[in-house]
Amino acid sequence: MQPYAELPNLTAQASNGIAYAYRDTGGHDATVPLVLLQHFRGNLENWDPALIDDLAQSHRVITFDNAGVGSSSGTTPDTIEQMARDAIAFITALGRGQVDLLGFSIGSFVAQEVTLIRPAIARRVVLASSAPQGAAGMHGWAPEVIGAVGTPQTSPEEYLDVFFARSDTSRQAGQAALKRMYARNQDRDTATNWATRQAQYDAVCNWGVPDHAALQRVSAIKHPVFVANGDSDPMILPHYSYLLAGLIPQAKVKIYPDAAHGFLFQHHAEFAADVEAFLSAPR
Amino acid sequence: MQPYAELPNLTAQASNGIAYAYRDTGGHDATVPLVLLQHFRGNLENWDPALIDDLAQSHRVITFDNAGVGSSSGTTPDTIEQMARDAIAFITALGRGQVDLLGFSIGSFVAQEVTLIRPAIARRVVLASSAPQGAAGMHGWAPEVIGAVGTPQTSPEEYLDVFFARSDTSRQAGQAALKRMYARNQDRDTATNWATRQAQYDAVCNWGVPDHAALQRVSAIKHPVFVANGDSDPMILPHYSYLLAGLIPQAKVKIYPDAAHGFLFQHHAEFAADVEAFLSAPR
Repeated sequence: MQPYAELPNLTAQASNGIAYAYRDTGGHDATVPLVLLQHFRGNLENWDPALIDDLAQSHRVITFDNAGVGSSSGTTPDTIEQMARDAIAFITALGRGQVDLLGFSIGSFVAQEVTLIRPAIARRVVLASSAPQGAAGMHGWAPEVIGAVGTPQTSPEEYLDVFFARSDTSRQAGQAALKRMYARNQDRDTATNWATRQAQYDAVCNWGVPDHAALQRVSAIKHPVFVANGDSDPMILPHYSYLLAGLIPQAKVKIYPDAAHGFLFQHHAEFAADVEAFLSAPR
Repeated sequence: MQPYAELPNLTAQASNGIAYAYRDTGGHDATVPLVLLQHFRGNLENWDPALIDDLAQSHRVITFDNAGVGSSSGTTPDTIEQMARDAIAFITALGRGQVDLLGFSIGSFVAQEVTLIRPAIARRVVLASSAPQGAAGMHGWAPEVIGAVGTPQTSPEEYLDVFFARSDTSRQAGQAALKRMYARNQDRDTATNWATRQAQYDAVCNWGVPDHAALQRVSAIKHPVFVANGDSDPMILPHYSYLLAGLIPQAKVKIYPDAAHGFLFQHHAEFAADVEAFLSAPR
């Protein structure tokens, strides 16, 4: 298996006219592919290679830049709904039929919307650091969070403040994850730009407008869903994972200790094993 | 400290004209008393004495029969709301001011309603084997559950089927709990009658009429809340504990392994320690 850090950048031309940048681990070709949906301002390099390599032990794993993000063509839309349509176009262009979805942060909002708009495209769904549309208290990130990851130039320290917890263990895990993400020095993905940041944050705020009635939407998701978060995520509180798990009929939930928004990088081996158990469990 | 099995039966005359039967461990008189709200068809004898004795290590614990139940006077009402008013009348009659509440099953519905109707009466709230009003799928117990605990004469085996899990460990814990509950042979509480069963089940069904809008009610509970259940409760699925924990702003949640509706009897020492940690935690 080729490690994530060495995978070539591929392009998928979709019917919506977008050329999507993606990477494909290619292994385990007989399994349902696991398509990953990325966080706020993230591109192909913002997946911890250790997590992808762990997941790729038992699954074909595909990462991609959605429309307008990183090296993909087009303009980043300012609604989760349009991002979902763009993700559906990418998945359709892969020509693989049904996939498993793993959405992280804003990518988990997109994963919910994909599953609601086109239920048949998803087999099982993992929602990492997630919340349902309309949840009270979700209207934009907290000031210290948007102040850290929403500025034109963000620092590794600001990234660590949001994605990792305050403990030494978590901080060291964060440093190690950053090192892995920056290790690749050839064919790195294009950095996301300010227009992407603005459009994505508009989408986040729009998604977070309080709307109790909208909470009912996810109860239409009949798929098995695995909801996961770090116990001290300052960006999307674990509280919202419980809310999702209580609203989605077939959900299970796990909160990882001593971890924040990037719990899935910090606990990459444990999380990948949990994802594998979830994806391979009998229905 | 006098063990629960030896506590005298007391009577509190309340302003609503009801004479409430209750027991009071009396210890730790300086602490906020912990008032317990009982399950469907339960009376003073249906609290596992082991749990009460564990809780009484650090709290004054008060159990009571609500209006119309067991040895209390009056008629069992057929709504959770009226049960809450009756519980408020009892707590007021104690003359202790603010209390902590621990509601179990239908008693946890009453505890929610007490906290909503008169927020000032409760300091902290424990909801065991609980669900919010209006939650989808909560309209009456499942056929095998009401078939087991809803009949005129129920057997110990039927009780075990609902309150304990299928494993040998859980079954043995159930037998031990039943033995403790039946050990008292003097001044046992009056058994609940069929009118109580009917009125309480009307209240359960009424509470469970699907109403997504009603889910928002518990978001008004600003108290610290501890939500707990057994992982295989067939009466009120742990799913609803996550829903409560996601709707109540200050909630924490714990699901106990290899346990069902009566997880708090099976894991009495662990649960009592968790309750004590919750009640004594700094705000």
